[in-house]
Amino acid sequence: MEKINVIKVGGKIVEDSIDAFLDSFTSIEGKKILVHGGGRTATAMAARLGIETKMVDGRRITDKEMLDIVTMVYGGLVNKSIVSGLQARGVNAVGLTGADMDIIRSVKRPVKAIDYGYVGDVTAVRGDMIKSLIDKGITPVIAPLTHDGDGNMLNTNADTMTACVAKALAGMYEVTLTFCFEMPGVLRNPEAPDSVIPVITPDSFEELKAAGIITGGMIPKMDNALDAVRAGVSKVVITKADSIDAGTTVKL
Amino acid sequence: MEKINVIKVGGKIVEDSIDAFLDSFTSIEGKKILVHGGGRTATAMAARLGIETKMVDGRRITDKEMLDIVTMVYGGLVNKSIVSGLQARGVNAVGLTGADMDIIRSVKRPVKAIDYGYVGDVTAVRGDMIKSLIDKGITPVIAPLTHDGDGNMLNTNADTMTACVAKALAGMYEVTLTFCFEMPGVLRNPEAPDSVIPVITPDSFEELKAAGIITGGMIPKMDNALDAVRAGVSKVVITKADSIDAGTTVKL
Repeated sequence: MEKINVIKVGGKIVEDSIDAFLDSFTSIEGKKILVHGGGRTATAMAARLGIETKMVDGRRITDKEMLDIVTMVYGGLVNKSIVSGLQARGVNAVGLTGADMDIIRSVKRPVKAIDYGYVGDVTAVRGDMIKSLIDKGITPVIAPLTHDGDGNMLNTNADTMTACVAKALAGMYEVTLTFCFEMPGVLRNPEAPDSVIPVITPDSFEELKAAGIITGGMIPKMDNALDAVRAGVSKVVITKADSIDAGTTVKL
Repeated sequence: MEKINVIKVGGKIVEDSIDAFLDSFTSIEGKKILVHGGGRTATAMAARLGIETKMVDGRRITDKEMLDIVTMVYGGLVNKSIVSGLQARGVNAVGLTGADMDIIRSVKRPVKAIDYGYVGDVTAVRGDMIKSLIDKGITPVIAPLTHDGDGNMLNTNADTMTACVAKALAGMYEVTLTFCFEMPGVLRNPEAPDSVIPVITPDSFEELKAAGIITGGMIPKMDNALDAVRAGVSKVVITKADSIDAGTTVKL
């Protein structure tokens, strides 16, 4: 099977060092897909518009006004700056949200203890549509927005979207899913960047969690990673944006 | 040759009666492309951000801050509301700017008497890329933004972009280009909506212009229309959004 790289890059990298990241992404050979964040730009734009950003456990509460802001910022400003930057580097990119070509549908998250507002949980990925672009030599650049099929955009977690896209392509390609963040990998000691754990399996994840080595926001990221490898993704890598061949590898 | 409808809809219609327009657009059978505006939403967003909108002869002066606003508003907010609205109506749309799939390149307009800023004049349209989407049953929805190939988005006149797209497809399809605006067609008497001129040819356009019947903003629209028919577009129609089979037909 042909190989494909599905890469998630967080907002912080997109916002602070976009050129370096785009150079690094451009240098990846073969077929590839990028999923990006943009939360800090959205928060800054909201502030300029006099709208307060409310977060619960790192997740944005998205009322109608905030939905318009993330649609503008993720789908417009951030997405098009990446796409035009890749075009300048000779990568024929196309910017997409889940609504475009119906690639990713979701349902509005049910209100339980917390009302997240216009936030979507992914229900369906059109791998065939994504593949039709890739087969034409196009590189999809996906913003963290989905749609519900009833005319509403929904704000969606970029890590989860990336894992869903990787899983949808797992039957068609040999997929490597890479989460780029600020650290060189999953660290044994958060203070020591050289303490990268090279390989994590489902069993070692349970041990690392029980030992308090993997904690906080890394737990849902690892859950997404393990979920993806269980669903047929060949390899998940958690690493720094400028060194995507190193880092922590998650596998069965 | 297969037929295709290339339709331009102005900002006012998108902003005031989007649902009625999307119903009407959905009812058009066969292959189709939509190009949209969004100027009033951009002006309103600029005002909320404390940025003044400057227009010269109906064209927006686009400094760096205004470029970010139109990129957000046209490429994000307006484009995705149309795309998600079409998905809800069963039309598999994809939202694009000129940067996406490199479909429309432009050059920054040279500074002469007026510095329009980050405004692009179209230099190249990738009809093959647009056709590859249409052949998959996808309906492109194009925002009035292009790119220069050097990493910059450029604000671009939607009428001109629509005519350029129609011309690029003229060798591949039998193209009908429709400009939807607030009037039922080109009027002999601007006060009388029933005074639609049914057919305009290059010769009659000269007469109507000399007689002072076609004036102001209608002249560049007519120039775009005649330019398109001369380049092989089968028919150009200027009409109201809710009655796209009536109106003024421009032909050789």
